[in-house]
Amino acid sequence: MTSTATALAGHSLINGAPVEGRGETTVAVDPATNESLEPAYTLVDTEQLGAATRAAADAFDSFRALDPETHAAFLERIAENIEAAGEEIVARAMAETGLPEARLTGERGRTANQLRLFAAVVRQGDHRGARIDPALPERTPLPRADIRQRMIPLGPVAVFGASNFPLAFSTAGGDTASALAAGCPVVFKAHNAHPGTSELVGRAIVDAVRDFDLHPGVFSLVYGPGSTIGQALVADPAIKAVGFTGSRSAGTALMRTAAARPEPIPVYAEMSSINPVFFFDGALQGDLDALATAYLRSVTGSSGQLCTAPGLVFVPAGDAGDAFVAAVGRAAAACTGQTMLTRGICGSWQSGVEALAGQDGVDVVGRGTDGATRNAPAPVVLGTDAATFLTNPVLHEEIFGAASLVVRYDDAEQLREAAERLEGQLTTTLHLTDADREAARGLLPVLERKAGRILANGWPTGVEVGHAMVHGGPFPATSDSRTTSVGSLAIERFLRPVAYQNLPDALLPADLQEANPRRLNRRIDGSPTPA
Amino acid sequence: MTSTATALAGHSLINGAPVEGRGETTVAVDPATNESLEPAYTLVDTEQLGAATRAAADAFDSFRALDPETHAAFLERIAENIEAAGEEIVARAMAETGLPEARLTGERGRTANQLRLFAAVVRQGDHRGARIDPALPERTPLPRADIRQRMIPLGPVAVFGASNFPLAFSTAGGDTASALAAGCPVVFKAHNAHPGTSELVGRAIVDAVRDFDLHPGVFSLVYGPGSTIGQALVADPAIKAVGFTGSRSAGTALMRTAAARPEPIPVYAEMSSINPVFFFDGALQGDLDALATAYLRSVTGSSGQLCTAPGLVFVPAGDAGDAFVAAVGRAAAACTGQTMLTRGICGSWQSGVEALAGQDGVDVVGRGTDGATRNAPAPVVLGTDAATFLTNPVLHEEIFGAASLVVRYDDAEQLREAAERLEGQLTTTLHLTDADREAARGLLPVLERKAGRILANGWPTGVEVGHAMVHGGPFPATSDSRTTSVGSLAIERFLRPVAYQNLPDALLPADLQEANPRRLNRRIDGSPTPA
Repeated sequence: MTSTATALAGHSLINGAPVEGRGETTVAVDPATNESLEPAYTLVDTEQLGAATRAAADAFDSFRALDPETHAAFLERIAENIEAAGEEIVARAMAETGLPEARLTGERGRTANQLRLFAAVVRQGDHRGARIDPALPERTPLPRADIRQRMIPLGPVAVFGASNFPLAFSTAGGDTASALAAGCPVVFKAHNAHPGTSELVGRAIVDAVRDFDLHPGVFSLVYGPGSTIGQALVADPAIKAVGFTGSRSAGTALMRTAAARPEPIPVYAEMSSINPVFFFDGALQGDLDALATAYLRSVTGSSGQLCTAPGLVFVPAGDAGDAFVAAVGRAAAACTGQTMLTRGICGSWQSGVEALAGQDGVDVVGRGTDGATRNAPAPVVLGTDAATFLTNPVLHEEIFGAASLVVRYDDAEQLREAAERLEGQLTTTLHLTDADREAARGLLPVLERKAGRILANGWPTGVEVGHAMVHGGPFPATSDSRTTSVGSLAIERFLRPVAYQNLPDALLPADLQEANPRRLNRRIDGSPTPA
Repeated sequence: MTSTATALAGHSLINGAPVEGRGETTVAVDPATNESLEPAYTLVDTEQLGAATRAAADAFDSFRALDPETHAAFLERIAENIEAAGEEIVARAMAETGLPEARLTGERGRTANQLRLFAAVVRQGDHRGARIDPALPERTPLPRADIRQRMIPLGPVAVFGASNFPLAFSTAGGDTASALAAGCPVVFKAHNAHPGTSELVGRAIVDAVRDFDLHPGVFSLVYGPGSTIGQALVADPAIKAVGFTGSRSAGTALMRTAAARPEPIPVYAEMSSINPVFFFDGALQGDLDALATAYLRSVTGSSGQLCTAPGLVFVPAGDAGDAFVAAVGRAAAACTGQTMLTRGICGSWQSGVEALAGQDGVDVVGRGTDGATRNAPAPVVLGTDAATFLTNPVLHEEIFGAASLVVRYDDAEQLREAAERLEGQLTTTLHLTDADREAARGLLPVLERKAGRILANGWPTGVEVGHAMVHGGPFPATSDSRTTSVGSLAIERFLRPVAYQNLPDALLPADLQEANPRRLNRRIDGSPTPA
């Protein structure tokens, strides 16, 4: 074993304190070398897990009653604590994930920015959804009562760390940030591929909880096997919603568990997407080598392990398309493999590529070279035609990693048919010029039904964290298309409305009191009314 | 058989035309007489059902592309058509449900008002959720793309008619109105207890579809057995969401079917609630007979068959409480049974009351007299103490009909414990004066976790249709606490966000075009920006 972070304890953080797990232990592995990393992590049993969920339930009422300024400052403190431990976090994450320093430094910044974005949302307060229908005592035939509505948090949320975002979609990532911002305590199940990164970030959160004198149950971090402790967490009666990013099989397993509970709960699982890209004729008139290079950059960034990597590209038949595919072949050949997250993910990628390459009518467009580290296979682009694509569902499946499939199509009708056959997607992308607008207009209604985000003349990787972003989409892209896991709208996943009828002003929540002490924008009799 | 409406055809309305079902037939029964009503209704088979769902899918893209003014006028035309057939509708509904004319006339008005409320929502446009994060080409280290977000409808929605609201939560009721307002075609499964009412209202919708030259698949009405055709409708791949009001067993059966689909879909089921009422000491200082009479009016209105009827009332131990319970006994004795909706519902009510009355520690507080019609059992109020309530889960179950349970409690701690033990509720009610405020304040956080609406000094029946209403709540009150089935917020159940990144203005939906042709309020860089 090589030691990268001797300060790590290897224990869960439950209700504010380190807890040595009574289950087995696990160690992280550096995927660039296949060597184990100290320390060993102790896994909790279900009784220890229960202590975390009970603490979260105990913390709920006081946490959701926080004033917005304290609540926002708490989120900002987490960001500061992460930044203060920033170098150690990035170093450990590099060792545990094989991702390069620049990517992880950027991801650390994004993680802090997400927390600050939600702090701003909490201060601004529109997510409280304040609505007032004033009493109409003179109305006939019946008077109207005074009715007021606001959003309250759902309750404790179970969040699962994602393998491919050890910071931005793990311990203090988007799901945790939006749940905490909504006022929900979080029980976080760490991903066993980056336990040390999780511990370092978990401490940053626990320290912020202590600094603000919050109930320690507001945040717990547990280590355990997904198939037992992860399932038990989703089944726990104290848990009221679930945030997950990962594989389709793991996500649908959590969905089934949540639906089978005596009290079913919402699951927000971001799972599987091949992010189809559609080239129209006009888009192939420019610098095809530059276009192909940009395509391969999107395919191979983070070793292809991004939820929005373009796994499927539709290119028109004909000379321009032939030239573009040739350019793609050259661009792919110039790529070098980068370390993948785990041996298991690398193995799944290789099996997936082999299965796809072995299908009738599929050939190799271009293949790069293996990287110098372990688990760094050569990126590959395969090719087929639309008729083959339409008849073989294997070609519609996600391969997580640096692989993509180019599909040649004959005409607009065939393209539309292929689009209609697609499953739900996180993104879909159009490459077009003014001359292609009518063709694109015909396809857009199909794409709206299939995806959460539609791009033009770009590549889908690189998900902006803002107010208008949607990182979501119809099943199996996610378990719940009504929402997003990136961006400020994500807070709404963890809220539900409560109405108050004729309550005395002194008993109303501050959000709804007549004097509007929180200075909220409110909807009065249906009309938006600024504070 | 007695004929009440010879104009009725007895057939489903699929894709704009009457369709004679190839399954068995059913007839409505007048519950006041137990006599059958003409005509017989033919039930569809699954192939005929498939024609309705395919037509809905075919209609989706054109329906959701309607301009808001036409869309709103279409909803208003449905309301006008219902009013034009108003007398016939009320007469048939009286015969099919046993509900009195005044109630049904009021419900017809409410149904039209709901449609007009959603027409106003469609014209106003805030539900489109338009958000714009403008491009920041100069941002470092990376420029920001132009990202715009709006809500689009989910797709065809299956709506199930409710037995207890033959108009306001049936064919053109709240679920249908909010789904159509969202831009979702509707396949409506009629309740077999009021098929004629459903046909009359269904025609009003089909006529409006034809008047506006919409795709006839925008609305279909099918008759069939819930256990087969209802289940097949929820399982149909063309259906993307479900609206249901009914029993816990039927609702959870639909939830299971929706969760087991290859593509799971959201189910909005409003199911089961006992609507607990909490009396504090101060509230028992006034006119106890008037209070008891108001209580019994809420228990017995519509023969107790309202989702928000107060089935459970907590009253403090002691002299004032004794006096109130005595007044309740007198008020109950003065009540006369009214016709229930069906023989089956009446039978279930009687079994439920017998089971509850037979529990240890439960006695009769007061019982009215049977009504003159069939299926009009005497209303009853039972009583117990909180210790018994806490230990016997049978006392926590809904009895649908005119029955209620008074629970005597000793102190605030016992009251809080009882509240914590309750399942999710549509409503909960406090009766209090200024002197009781601190006691109520201690209970409020519990009640917020348990219910969708909290009332003070009133009774929960009579659900206002407005912008601030919440008719929802944690399971089992509903299948999805994140929403409401009554009021303008209900439209959000059938929407999902889509983001557009760097799309040319000409390809953007009008909601998001730079010139804001729809004059929508939009959120720009996170700030609400009026049109």
